[in-house]
Amino acid sequence: MPIENAAFSLPEYKARIAKTRAAMEKAGIDLLFVTDPSNQAWLTGYDGWSFYVHQGVLLPMEGEPIWWGRGMDAQGGKRTCWMSFDNIHGYADNYVQSTVRHPMQDLAGHIRRLGSEGARIGVEMENYYYSAKAHAVLTEELPNATFVDATALVNWQRLVKSGEEIAFIRKAARISEKVIRTAIDKSAVGVRKNDVVAEIMHAGITGVDDIWGDYPAIVPLTPSGLDATAAHLTWNGAPMKEGEATFFELSGCYRRYHAPLCRTVFLGKPPQSALDAEKAQVEGIEAALDAARAGNRTCDIANAFTSVLAKHGLKKEGRMGYPIGLSYPPDWGERSASIRAEDQTILEPGMTFHFMPALWMDTWGLETTETILITENGPAEAVCNVERKLFVKD
Amino acid sequence: MPIENAAFSLPEYKARIAKTRAAMEKAGIDLLFVTDPSNQAWLTGYDGWSFYVHQGVLLPMEGEPIWWGRGMDAQGGKRTCWMSFDNIHGYADNYVQSTVRHPMQDLAGHIRRLGSEGARIGVEMENYYYSAKAHAVLTEELPNATFVDATALVNWQRLVKSGEEIAFIRKAARISEKVIRTAIDKSAVGVRKNDVVAEIMHAGITGVDDIWGDYPAIVPLTPSGLDATAAHLTWNGAPMKEGEATFFELSGCYRRYHAPLCRTVFLGKPPQSALDAEKAQVEGIEAALDAARAGNRTCDIANAFTSVLAKHGLKKEGRMGYPIGLSYPPDWGERSASIRAEDQTILEPGMTFHFMPALWMDTWGLETTETILITENGPAEAVCNVERKLFVKD
Repeated sequence: MPIENAAFSLPEYKARIAKTRAAMEKAGIDLLFVTDPSNQAWLTGYDGWSFYVHQGVLLPMEGEPIWWGRGMDAQGGKRTCWMSFDNIHGYADNYVQSTVRHPMQDLAGHIRRLGSEGARIGVEMENYYYSAKAHAVLTEELPNATFVDATALVNWQRLVKSGEEIAFIRKAARISEKVIRTAIDKSAVGVRKNDVVAEIMHAGITGVDDIWGDYPAIVPLTPSGLDATAAHLTWNGAPMKEGEATFFELSGCYRRYHAPLCRTVFLGKPPQSALDAEKAQVEGIEAALDAARAGNRTCDIANAFTSVLAKHGLKKEGRMGYPIGLSYPPDWGERSASIRAEDQTILEPGMTFHFMPALWMDTWGLETTETILITENGPAEAVCNVERKLFVKD
Repeated sequence: MPIENAAFSLPEYKARIAKTRAAMEKAGIDLLFVTDPSNQAWLTGYDGWSFYVHQGVLLPMEGEPIWWGRGMDAQGGKRTCWMSFDNIHGYADNYVQSTVRHPMQDLAGHIRRLGSEGARIGVEMENYYYSAKAHAVLTEELPNATFVDATALVNWQRLVKSGEEIAFIRKAARISEKVIRTAIDKSAVGVRKNDVVAEIMHAGITGVDDIWGDYPAIVPLTPSGLDATAAHLTWNGAPMKEGEATFFELSGCYRRYHAPLCRTVFLGKPPQSALDAEKAQVEGIEAALDAARAGNRTCDIANAFTSVLAKHGLKKEGRMGYPIGLSYPPDWGERSASIRAEDQTILEPGMTFHFMPALWMDTWGLETTETILITENGPAEAVCNVERKLFVKD
């Protein structure tokens, strides 16, 4: 594929590879096998819904990365990766979901051809797309190799975003604003939840002007009432009801980059407890954004929020956010740092997080969140612009 | 959750468990740990977009299954599983995507509490949601257990659908017809692909009458022209062009059940080679459906198709289909049998497959597929009703 068609410039891809190789060297890894689709895309540009079969990127210490996957998806590799076609390899279709063959047997052949059968090979042990079986077959095929757990090695390199990436996230943010406003507009007593979701999806995929919408890595999460006390239930065909809060956890997506955003809608007159929680939450978010400064730590963001909440007699436990950017299903989080009391990652300009200090109560949930960008000086910037409050439709 | 709210009747769930236990017994498994979200839902009803963190179902040889996952998702378990709340367990949030703790440490505690630390434990070695790391931690935690590869053990029990399941698939099929017709209607020279996809998604989620649309396990696959030679590329914002074929691989979804369907649209005047291929493909599908009879084998379907193709001087290699029904991302296939020359699974009434004899050529792709139901007598039934042809919009 001509580099002009790639999502990013060649110097950008080269810089990513240089960063990754430095991390490999530090970890004592000669050859890295990357299965996380986000990491594959970040290094090579590969983009397709083909991660349900085994595929990955081999990154040696020199030369171009090598994309490897199912034969028919190697065609997709040629249409989306920036490397020369020599570095895109497909395996035969009878390896696919076979009970007698495993694609890792084919991959092992490529590793032997690279002369790396005795190398220190980094694998992403904790990844959706590197199964227990894949590891068992690969290690059996390469008895002289030493396997090193390289979980999140590439993800950590992605933590500070480049200017090109931030531009994509800002585009995604325009779509996020649109989908959240659509959700608020369409919510009404008696409207079926799936019809609201259909409008949200339509708004997200049409996008904003020339910012066309890609698919977010998570479907709209839109639970109401008691279902909203469970964070990850999806919709059904039941009508929205008077007296219920519904939270909308949504993200726009532009060329696989996300900017998640949540707002909560209350139909009818909210109880005083919800209004009190709203006040505490909004004040807490302001304090947290002020603490989200370069040089501070991720835990400082969490602690700033919980301090305000405590002042209001409320308590929030659990994780309050994660880095975001490039992602594929099933998660739009980057799975490296976390915004939580025990995480001490130092904040740097260019980091982007979904800060989500959701309050899940016994009988309702209140989600007001922001995608934030750590800046050179001063507090974090919220990249989306939607009023920060509980939306009441009475 | 009251059983009336469950997707299926209690006798249906009990029958599924009985079938699974018989398979466990045959495989010498005392305790099964199920991570495939589709298998979890099939056994317990659990339904939520929470599979991006570790969760699963423990099925002992007696008593109810046990759903286990993140604390906040245990709330979702209580709202979607049919078992008593005693059998729904959550782990603490500091296990989530932690660099120092792993949820499998918590799961091992539950297995010890069941007295099964020395049991023969079945695990789904080849599953997106059972990572190499999860297996490493679990086996380390339970050194006296014997681990047995139970990949697809539950999936095979799902191959023959119950009447209740077939009713769901028929509902999904109504939505599939609607989304395919929407795609054909909206396709036109100059229309941005993402705008077509937005209409498809809107049509799919609004559904048909009271058949509300759930999210399909794969996003719309809609490549045009040269991109259509690569099977799994997703859309972008480029306008559709004169002289290009676009295939639409779509599925309606009703309460997680699918009925995938593909049709191809040609804008302008198609080349004779495409028309010839269309003729061969349609004739081949008819022959294949006729061969898809109870008592025949999956390979008979594939061979019937390729024989017709050969008569027309065309060749088709690779897998031509897979069982479908209940599914979660990233795949709507069931990952047990395959429709291909080397697969000898005996067809039984109630089996449902996505039969997809797609022709991917050097410069274009032609996908015309059907979701088929194996009947008591006679050829397979195509559960969707959309004309089987290349749709030409000139």
